[in-house]
Amino acid sequence: MKTKAIVAGVGMTSFGRHQDRSLKSLAGEAVLAALRDAGLSPADVQAAYMGSAAAGIITGQLCVPGEIVLREIGIGGVPVINVENACATGSTALNQALAMVTLGAYDVVLACGYEKLVHPDKEKSFAVFTGAADVERADELAATVDERLREAGMAVTAGGQRSVFMDIYAMMTATHMQKYGTTREQIAAVSAKNSFHGSLNPRAQFRDVITVEQVLAAREVSYPLTLPMCSPIGDGAAAVILVSERKARELGLQRPVRVLSSAFRTGWNFAEGEGESTVFEQTIAQAYEEAGVGPQDLSVVELHDAAAPSEIIHTEYLGLCAKGEGGPLVESGATRLGGRIPVSTSGGLLRKGHPIGATGIAQIVELTEQLQGRSGPRQVEGARVGLAENGGGFVGDSVAALIVTILAR
Amino acid sequence: MKTKAIVAGVGMTSFGRHQDRSLKSLAGEAVLAALRDAGLSPADVQAAYMGSAAAGIITGQLCVPGEIVLREIGIGGVPVINVENACATGSTALNQALAMVTLGAYDVVLACGYEKLVHPDKEKSFAVFTGAADVERADELAATVDERLREAGMAVTAGGQRSVFMDIYAMMTATHMQKYGTTREQIAAVSAKNSFHGSLNPRAQFRDVITVEQVLAAREVSYPLTLPMCSPIGDGAAAVILVSERKARELGLQRPVRVLSSAFRTGWNFAEGEGESTVFEQTIAQAYEEAGVGPQDLSVVELHDAAAPSEIIHTEYLGLCAKGEGGPLVESGATRLGGRIPVSTSGGLLRKGHPIGATGIAQIVELTEQLQGRSGPRQVEGARVGLAENGGGFVGDSVAALIVTILAR
Repeated sequence: MKTKAIVAGVGMTSFGRHQDRSLKSLAGEAVLAALRDAGLSPADVQAAYMGSAAAGIITGQLCVPGEIVLREIGIGGVPVINVENACATGSTALNQALAMVTLGAYDVVLACGYEKLVHPDKEKSFAVFTGAADVERADELAATVDERLREAGMAVTAGGQRSVFMDIYAMMTATHMQKYGTTREQIAAVSAKNSFHGSLNPRAQFRDVITVEQVLAAREVSYPLTLPMCSPIGDGAAAVILVSERKARELGLQRPVRVLSSAFRTGWNFAEGEGESTVFEQTIAQAYEEAGVGPQDLSVVELHDAAAPSEIIHTEYLGLCAKGEGGPLVESGATRLGGRIPVSTSGGLLRKGHPIGATGIAQIVELTEQLQGRSGPRQVEGARVGLAENGGGFVGDSVAALIVTILAR
Repeated sequence: MKTKAIVAGVGMTSFGRHQDRSLKSLAGEAVLAALRDAGLSPADVQAAYMGSAAAGIITGQLCVPGEIVLREIGIGGVPVINVENACATGSTALNQALAMVTLGAYDVVLACGYEKLVHPDKEKSFAVFTGAADVERADELAATVDERLREAGMAVTAGGQRSVFMDIYAMMTATHMQKYGTTREQIAAVSAKNSFHGSLNPRAQFRDVITVEQVLAAREVSYPLTLPMCSPIGDGAAAVILVSERKARELGLQRPVRVLSSAFRTGWNFAEGEGESTVFEQTIAQAYEEAGVGPQDLSVVELHDAAAPSEIIHTEYLGLCAKGEGGPLVESGATRLGGRIPVSTSGGLLRKGHPIGATGIAQIVELTEQLQGRSGPRQVEGARVGLAENGGGFVGDSVAALIVTILAR
């Protein structure tokens, strides 16, 4: 969708462990911060898209979590739509809010992502990820993962609590290593780079800088992935206020950020007989085309690095380098702050953290601040165009939801 | 919202206990039936709004349930938005699909509601309802309910598994009885009437006809409510295909049903300082105004009778009778098939059943078939205009989401 919405304000909590705080408290903080940033009040919100994925299991708040959050901070009398799309939940909220503003339904729409994942009972936190793939086919999926890992000559992680998603990422990684000669050092370089970016972000879950050697020496989660190659479990919330062009003029926004496009689809397309890699490329191509920009125009990218190899694979999809060159790209420093195209200046999911529902919106918060020149020590100089890529869930052999958003100042 | 969408096809499963069937199987059946009814195929769907509320607790499928259902029946490559709003989940899916068609984003949009509520462990089924009110304030809510029931001179149901929602309905009922002299016999008349309607609906969870005396003599759930005054726990799915006017012409639909309006808001409005009863009236007034009809124009109504007294209270809100006259209205037979304004010809939530996410869409299935003259023995002769009212969740002292939809042939 070619969009016509303007980001009037952004807000977010720090990401990390917030065991003493409720969903209401986290999401409320983010929404009120975004409203303040926009110079608006709760009464100005005309519709709200509220994204969370795990509340039912983690807090018991199975239904209407959005209304509960919003009532607490004085928002009501408007449509509140609770949306969910696993790790792409936040971008789903954003995409729908964008559509409403673009199509002229409202002048001021809130998109918020919020999540609590940390639970004293770790089984509950893990159940969230199990529940983001087809639960009726969990055994089938595990068997497929094992088989592909064996084919690629990789060890199969045995025993203990399996992390379904990290197994899937391990499988994708094995394929990429086999096909393109991608190395574990290159994958570790993603974690190391993002730890540097995260060290500059006061809202990041992890602030320490780690080296390639430290990443490789860490505990194995699912070969070839070690712990710092996997995004952590954490809590947090992020919010964006989108406004129409008319409202943006009325507000006299000093540093308006325009959303140029938002492409959204499942990872498979039966009508065209296409699978994940083709759909990835089509979705990204659509986002570029509707925005009227190409990879060479990007100043900064927030990417869905739920696992470190994702950055390598997805920088290729995004056209930031040729196929198979994602490993060398990160090793060259091109995706580091100061490099040709900084990727995940926030620290990414790996270091900023990944409270599922909040992630997609937090990407927009980071890009908006970068495009407004207010990212402090991690500012990309002269940033003009930013891209966010967010994926969620796993069905069959594909991502369930893939959303690519392009913004510009 | 004044809408411009046309219902091209509807489909639904029977409601009831489907313990041998998966969400995929139930929702797949409903979606394929709706597509067949519209003369369309899976490849024609341009966006899908998938509504379910309880999958995370009942089946473990916490995330991306919509994509999992749709992949199974060959739908992909399009945006899939999983939405939730407790018992108003289905109408939320419908409202958003309507917006997209009305605003010109797509020509063919699917709205589907689907749910499995039956679980061998009854605690899990009950947890769904507990999770549709603010879980952090469950004790506070229970205390308020007890206090209001005592004030109204009603017994407080003690011990055992409390049904939070039926306690809330008991509280509302007590207030109505005290204020207007509404009797338990009148409330029982709603259940008896809807049992007659349900007996004529092959898809209803309950097909037996029960009398006022039987309703009154049944087990007490939360005084003054007995078991047949409460909607049951059940499984099921329903789907609607909405199309643009252009697409409707292209399809050459024989019996097009037009959606005239869809009004949607939370049960409180802080900006206006208003609470539930005022917001109810405003939402209904908005639906009438945008549709250009009034209560006198309605031929048939599907109403959110999660508990029998709701019909009495809501026929008043809908303007089908004066304030306080809802009890006499049902006793007069006016809301029975053959009466002045038949209410819940499907059997309503009480007898057709109430698989949460499916309910709002099933109301539209019933109204569409009524307006197309294909409701068989429960046909309302000459039906021209239908209204569906669907509410979900409870926050503070108000419904979380209220949606009123008006259709016409």
